[in-house]
Amino acid sequence: MSKIKFETDYQEGCHPKILERLTLTNYEQTSGYGVDSHCERAKVLIREAVGNPDAEVFFMVGGTQTNTAIIKFLLKPWEGVIAVNSGHINVHESGAIEATGHKVLVLPGHEGLLKAEDLKHYLETFYADPTYDHMVQPGMVYISQSSEYGTLYTRDSLTKIKAVCEEYKLPLFIDGARLGTALTSEANELTLKDIASLCDVFYIGGTKNGALFGEAIVFSQNFAGLKDFRTLIKQQGGLLAKGKLLGIQFEALFEDGLYFENARHANKQAMKIKQAFTDSHIPFYIESFTNQQFPILTQEQHKTLSREFDYETWESLNDGKIVVRFCTSWATTDAQAIKNL
Amino acid sequence: MSKIKFETDYQEGCHPKILERLTLTNYEQTSGYGVDSHCERAKVLIREAVGNPDAEVFFMVGGTQTNTAIIKFLLKPWEGVIAVNSGHINVHESGAIEATGHKVLVLPGHEGLLKAEDLKHYLETFYADPTYDHMVQPGMVYISQSSEYGTLYTRDSLTKIKAVCEEYKLPLFIDGARLGTALTSEANELTLKDIASLCDVFYIGGTKNGALFGEAIVFSQNFAGLKDFRTLIKQQGGLLAKGKLLGIQFEALFEDGLYFENARHANKQAMKIKQAFTDSHIPFYIESFTNQQFPILTQEQHKTLSREFDYETWESLNDGKIVVRFCTSWATTDAQAIKNL
Amino acid sequence: MSKIKFETDYQEGCHPKILERLTLTNYEQTSGYGVDSHCERAKVLIREAVGNPDAEVFFMVGGTQTNTAIIKFLLKPWEGVIAVNSGHINVHESGAIEATGHKVLVLPGHEGLLKAEDLKHYLETFYADPTYDHMVQPGMVYISQSSEYGTLYTRDSLTKIKAVCEEYKLPLFIDGARLGTALTSEANELTLKDIASLCDVFYIGGTKNGALFGEAIVFSQNFAGLKDFRTLIKQQGGLLAKGKLLGIQFEALFEDGLYFENARHANKQAMKIKQAFTDSHIPFYIESFTNQQFPILTQEQHKTLSREFDYETWESLNDGKIVVRFCTSWATTDAQAIKNL
Amino acid sequence: MSKIKFETDYQEGCHPKILERLTLTNYEQTSGYGVDSHCERAKVLIREAVGNPDAEVFFMVGGTQTNTAIIKFLLKPWEGVIAVNSGHINVHESGAIEATGHKVLVLPGHEGLLKAEDLKHYLETFYADPTYDHMVQPGMVYISQSSEYGTLYTRDSLTKIKAVCEEYKLPLFIDGARLGTALTSEANELTLKDIASLCDVFYIGGTKNGALFGEAIVFSQNFAGLKDFRTLIKQQGGLLAKGKLLGIQFEALFEDGLYFENARHANKQAMKIKQAFTDSHIPFYIESFTNQQFPILTQEQHKTLSREFDYETWESLNDGKIVVRFCTSWATTDAQAIKNL
Repeated sequence: MSKIKFETDYQEGCHPKILERLTLTNYEQTSGYGVDSHCERAKVLIREAVGNPDAEVFFMVGGTQTNTAIIKFLLKPWEGVIAVNSGHINVHESGAIEATGHKVLVLPGHEGLLKAEDLKHYLETFYADPTYDHMVQPGMVYISQSSEYGTLYTRDSLTKIKAVCEEYKLPLFIDGARLGTALTSEANELTLKDIASLCDVFYIGGTKNGALFGEAIVFSQNFAGLKDFRTLIKQQGGLLAKGKLLGIQFEALFEDGLYFENARHANKQAMKIKQAFTDSHIPFYIESFTNQQFPILTQEQHKTLSREFDYETWESLNDGKIVVRFCTSWATTDAQAIKNL
Repeated sequence: MSKIKFETDYQEGCHPKILERLTLTNYEQTSGYGVDSHCERAKVLIREAVGNPDAEVFFMVGGTQTNTAIIKFLLKPWEGVIAVNSGHINVHESGAIEATGHKVLVLPGHEGLLKAEDLKHYLETFYADPTYDHMVQPGMVYISQSSEYGTLYTRDSLTKIKAVCEEYKLPLFIDGARLGTALTSEANELTLKDIASLCDVFYIGGTKNGALFGEAIVFSQNFAGLKDFRTLIKQQGGLLAKGKLLGIQFEALFEDGLYFENARHANKQAMKIKQAFTDSHIPFYIESFTNQQFPILTQEQHKTLSREFDYETWESLNDGKIVVRFCTSWATTDAQAIKNL
Repeated sequence: MSKIKFETDYQEGCHPKILERLTLTNYEQTSGYGVDSHCERAKVLIREAVGNPDAEVFFMVGGTQTNTAIIKFLLKPWEGVIAVNSGHINVHESGAIEATGHKVLVLPGHEGLLKAEDLKHYLETFYADPTYDHMVQPGMVYISQSSEYGTLYTRDSLTKIKAVCEEYKLPLFIDGARLGTALTSEANELTLKDIASLCDVFYIGGTKNGALFGEAIVFSQNFAGLKDFRTLIKQQGGLLAKGKLLGIQFEALFEDGLYFENARHANKQAMKIKQAFTDSHIPFYIESFTNQQFPILTQEQHKTLSREFDYETWESLNDGKIVVRFCTSWATTDAQAIKNL
Repeated sequence: MSKIKFETDYQEGCHPKILERLTLTNYEQTSGYGVDSHCERAKVLIREAVGNPDAEVFFMVGGTQTNTAIIKFLLKPWEGVIAVNSGHINVHESGAIEATGHKVLVLPGHEGLLKAEDLKHYLETFYADPTYDHMVQPGMVYISQSSEYGTLYTRDSLTKIKAVCEEYKLPLFIDGARLGTALTSEANELTLKDIASLCDVFYIGGTKNGALFGEAIVFSQNFAGLKDFRTLIKQQGGLLAKGKLLGIQFEALFEDGLYFENARHANKQAMKIKQAFTDSHIPFYIESFTNQQFPILTQEQHKTLSREFDYETWESLNDGKIVVRFCTSWATTDAQAIKNL
């Protein structure tokens, strides 16, 4: 019998409303590459949702290509992107950023989050070094909401990071692969409009929140060259031929609040799992209020649990215990969540 | 009222059988990134179809990222890829190949096709030049079946190209974005197994043949480093999170011959359009037996036709006439095809 | 006995005045990487010579790295550089431009020269194509003075090219690897100041004009990001540790007109060779008034001449004759030049 | 009056014997790009010195371009290079490695040195991670002898690193920008032949050891593709037109032991400086037996010393003291070295 899978938040297909919409529109003829009425309408819906009628919106298929295109767009050849050590671009994208010629400039993370003080200290030290023109110049800052550890930037922490970025004229980019679960977490302090106004560019992740695939990039301002961003997307192999598929999915996600509903559900199921672990006196590596939970298991607990569940092994601790990750999604059922433990 | 669209072969969604299969499997839980039973089965079906049980099969989302990953994989840093001037990688991929650091070495095309003689002449001349180590070294050959002009390599012409490639130890890569319409054209001489055995790597295009998206890469031999090809795909932003979507679609395409059926239909409808133009004494720029047709219109004909149809303007001729492209697909109805003219 | 070499213009060491200066300054202690008084003074001399006190001047070691750094600096990721087919960056730099991610957009050359009409036609056609955002965007124009064939842009031809560039907002870059022999040619119409004012950036070639090595880049305007150009030079591996060597050489070349004297000598010796060929009724492939001469030899003449001389074989003609190149330099003696034939 | 400079080891020109040789050969005519008798002879001398008649030797101008060319040559697109955090390629080359598409995989350094245990631990952990194909694959190891901190690998430490490299089939590359001062240090345990046999490729630094410029790359084995390494050098902008200048300098350095003599002198003068600091009870940040010395100065000492000397500020300590670097060279006189303090 197959196990219940909590490995990631993209193990099923898509939310049935999205599938329904794809079915409904299947025979519509449209031009390719995102020049169609669905993409146009999805952009309008997103501009409304982010509270910026001038925002430039683009759709891409997956997170790595999205991160790469944005970073390649914003950096000059001699610049790098600042990120924390656990940042997705630094670890799990097979060097996609470096493949475009840019270094990831690594700062220490704090449960996956960047601290404004660390950023400021790095920049001060960098420019104080008389040989700094022999080093990769910092060109932008990359953070994730929620982070790789399911943690969240508070209003205060994000505001401070933005202030340092402005002082040093560095664009701030927020990776929103899991933005939905951030925005709907019980610990969240920031609205989608806050996010949009506290950075220069971010993306709204669809793949990990109930779409078949798809990420919506939102530029808060009209950067020089943005009119050619589609050419860059094409160059990166990220311009979907049947681009309308992205528009249709984001229409479905943003016309009736499905985006938030999916994420809220994932969080709710995660909280049930969290409670179950707590009830069993199993501690957590990090306290998370989003859909990623990081319990610390003994070898025996691991052995028992892995009979029924698939989940990710995150880190081995020195005392022999194991940090694992349980990840819920829009599709996690009560039966799955409650069965836990 | 909206026009009938003949701009491209990817204007609709997907064949209903594929949508059905996506719906049927929507709630299945699988691991991400193509490590799932659907991808495994699709690979088995493809290995059977190409007649090579040892072929290495990979799935990607779109043509540009597929071309880029394969070419980046095969070339050394100082090598370039040989293609004809009209080759897709040379014109319509926004410099995706160059973005990986490689030059496209351009040879003249003959109605979109490479001639073995031209290839041989280029290679002889190249190595006869004593300063050749100051030039980009030829590292592989890229051709398309069918070509950008809907034309086809014959058995003889492909065999000769392969022979030159072997003489110079250059891998031969066939871009099969439109391989389906090639294989089912009335003018075709080559089976899928022939294709597989007459090149080192090729891909079977799904996007332009009834899938929502998807291309299946087939390596005929186990090149050094191929075990890490997934890492390269990831680096290029081409590793789909819900990888099973690719497996499911190629299962549907290859278990009952849907792949060929779709393409045969597109060709059949194209032949109807071809007949209609011929009946109206409208000449063709190139004689094509696949789903792309290139009639030469007068300005007046263009004006009339563009009221009812969308199609691509291909080239302006010196006499004021215009070469246009009509493209059919698996979804082109009789009503659409017959209405023409 | 060794043959007389006319292969290139960099077969000897350097002009004795330069060697003398290097010897004189050998024990001076300076900071590295071009932050020294010699580089500063050389920059002042060059700003005077080009008639632009605000010009930004940088020194690099060789032509390929200079071309690459400038082009990488000026282009955005999705842009390419326009050049004629025979352009040095398109043929003899082993794909250095593509290695930085950019395509060379090739236009037909006319004896090595770009025509403003061709440039304009290309740009008009490019932007008229509705799919142009799937193609590499033109981002700058590259030409050489003198060209690979020793030919020269006239005042009129260069002015027209500049006008098209301005219309399309494309920076114009002049490769001046052989600028000296252009400026001192009897057919020349343009001063160094003209050159500086008719382009956005150019370089003054030292390697092919009597220096041990060295090229002086001159930016006519202060492009955004130029303050970090040194970081880009470093990244390209082009920041010479003992940077003063470049300053010292350009001081020597520009304080008393040695730069012009060297080039004038090379041209004068070339004209002697030209006369000798003419006297022998040997025709030329191209009429050149600079230090590169391209006689057309019969196989027999080639056999005879190659006993005493080394020169480059340029191209084989259909009638069996051979275009060869004789190249003179600051060091070509009368004995060498007159001995010819 | 100008200060005495201890900033780096390349503040003067070159050793007089080298200048003499350049003068002597100045009028010799040779072919360009290193195809000349001086380069040939220098290669023979180096093959003898490293004890490997089959070694492949190449010359380049500077360290950054040398590191870049070697690393670009050895890595596949999805691979990175392992280095310690203080490694030159990770800090002071402006992202030259990343500009070729490759990540620098950073391990902790120990006074600038890599430990075999750290390397082994990293590799074990990497391959134990089931998601490792989403990460940059380790493709080679980079270390420096002597290191950025003037420290040295012992025979034991280098042998152990080599063993781990062999176990994981990773080429080992030794950056020898300061190999001379390593080989002649009183603390050294390894001969040039040892170095050559304990790695797969290394380079012998000339720029920091008395040449005007120049690094000699030595490949211990004939890697696939090495026949095209010159094309890669050209692509990287590193193929010197007057290539003989490199040959002439390495002839001078290796025919009578000048390479070792220069380095021995630099070390000797450094030891005098070390003694002077020790006599003044000024402590060191790191104990170095090569030409780089890292005393820890109080603000007052710094103020006093910087009136007479130029040196590099290395790091500010928390207690307000400053680590600085004094660097000697082949040219450091007794007067300079003794005057210290």
